[in-house]
Amino acid sequence: MELVHDGERVDDLQRSGLHIIQDPAGFCFGMDAVLLAGYAAAPAGGRVLDLGTGTGIVPLLMSARTRAAQLTGLELQAKYADMAARSVALNRLEERISIVEGDIRRADAIFAPASFDVVTSNPPYMTAGRGLVNPRGEAAAARHELFCTFDDVARAAEKLLRGGGHLYLVHRPQRLPELMTTLRQHRLEPKRMRLVYPYLEAPANMVLLDCTKDGRPELKVEKPLIIYQAPGVYREEILEWYGY
Amino acid sequence: MELVHDGERVDDLQRSGLHIIQDPAGFCFGMDAVLLAGYAAAPAGGRVLDLGTGTGIVPLLMSARTRAAQLTGLELQAKYADMAARSVALNRLEERISIVEGDIRRADAIFAPASFDVVTSNPPYMTAGRGLVNPRGEAAAARHELFCTFDDVARAAEKLLRGGGHLYLVHRPQRLPELMTTLRQHRLEPKRMRLVYPYLEAPANMVLLDCTKDGRPELKVEKPLIIYQAPGVYREEILEWYGY
Repeated sequence: MELVHDGERVDDLQRSGLHIIQDPAGFCFGMDAVLLAGYAAAPAGGRVLDLGTGTGIVPLLMSARTRAAQLTGLELQAKYADMAARSVALNRLEERISIVEGDIRRADAIFAPASFDVVTSNPPYMTAGRGLVNPRGEAAAARHELFCTFDDVARAAEKLLRGGGHLYLVHRPQRLPELMTTLRQHRLEPKRMRLVYPYLEAPANMVLLDCTKDGRPELKVEKPLIIYQAPGVYREEILEWYGY
Repeated sequence: MELVHDGERVDDLQRSGLHIIQDPAGFCFGMDAVLLAGYAAAPAGGRVLDLGTGTGIVPLLMSARTRAAQLTGLELQAKYADMAARSVALNRLEERISIVEGDIRRADAIFAPASFDVVTSNPPYMTAGRGLVNPRGEAAAARHELFCTFDDVARAAEKLLRGGGHLYLVHRPQRLPELMTTLRQHRLEPKRMRLVYPYLEAPANMVLLDCTKDGRPELKVEKPLIIYQAPGVYREEILEWYGY
């Protein structure tokens, strides 16, 4: 069986020799996934679940950055689940990374309760029916809440995380009040937050969150993460996140 | 009657010739109040209420920065209400600023419902029984929730603001998840937020919030406000906030 299909592309992740298969005509990973994989920690020997894994970028990067024993990516769309599984095979990581095709809303029927130390998710940012682009096609599900809402993500994390386990998220600052309300309704206490600003003089356009299941309320808002020092020129810290 | 009592000090606010009476042995205003007064907007001819006004610093500064017609400061402790009223007299602002001695928890019995365009508050940051210092003495009430909780502040703002009116707050980032949950429970939607970082490489230590009563959910996280460019040296933007 050919691991790479016609029309697909293999990208070098510039880290530990990792490569990833992507469809240039479909949804390709962005900086948000790279930041999420860099923000998330995992205990040595731990179990990690990525909800809505898409191309599998987050478990792939986390396999290099952490000493987690088992990383699982759950993906609803068969095409992306298959592509992610082939990327795992391409990197010969089948023993550490599993890709499971399935629905976040039924995650508690797929995995045992409280069976993960860490859950990660880069969920769709826009509610269904919002945004400039009419949500059609396979890539739209990565951006719009067509198949799951943020509440579904939080509910799955609540059920699947052990007490004291961490949920790491990347999302849009525009939805922070709703995110915080929903997370706390699901016993996921925001403990660390990092706002991502494209420039020092620009509003934030991403937010990284680290929540602890049943954690004590007290949030640390970490130093700002500023991406560019000049148009097209990354600040030094971002190069570290990309592993250069 | 002497406007300034023994042991008190008159400070020049460096703005529009304003002065303020303070007790160096009691609670004196800090940068948080200056930032709040600079962050809060008020419509020309509007009515503004400051909950827990202390020395009256916020209405005094807002009288210079805005075209609000009426600014009211509500203060529980008789000593501070009296001191704030004398500062108003010292500046001959009795026609624009009123200081009312009273309890935030009974604010709806003091003021008519929906009678303000803007509410401001620099409430106590620490829950009662938290913090390193044993909460005793008159200054402790400004730092610890001895006489009112954050829920009391949000409840008062909900009752006293007109629909579409704004609540401006300064608080500690540590409590953001709780603040956002409580604000939304009281129909106060966070619409703008500015994180205040002492240095570019330090965690945030203050947060400014602009909430709209019955506003549509969508938060703008504005560019970071960074205080110092070097130890003891303010960044240029802070000088503007201080009105220099």
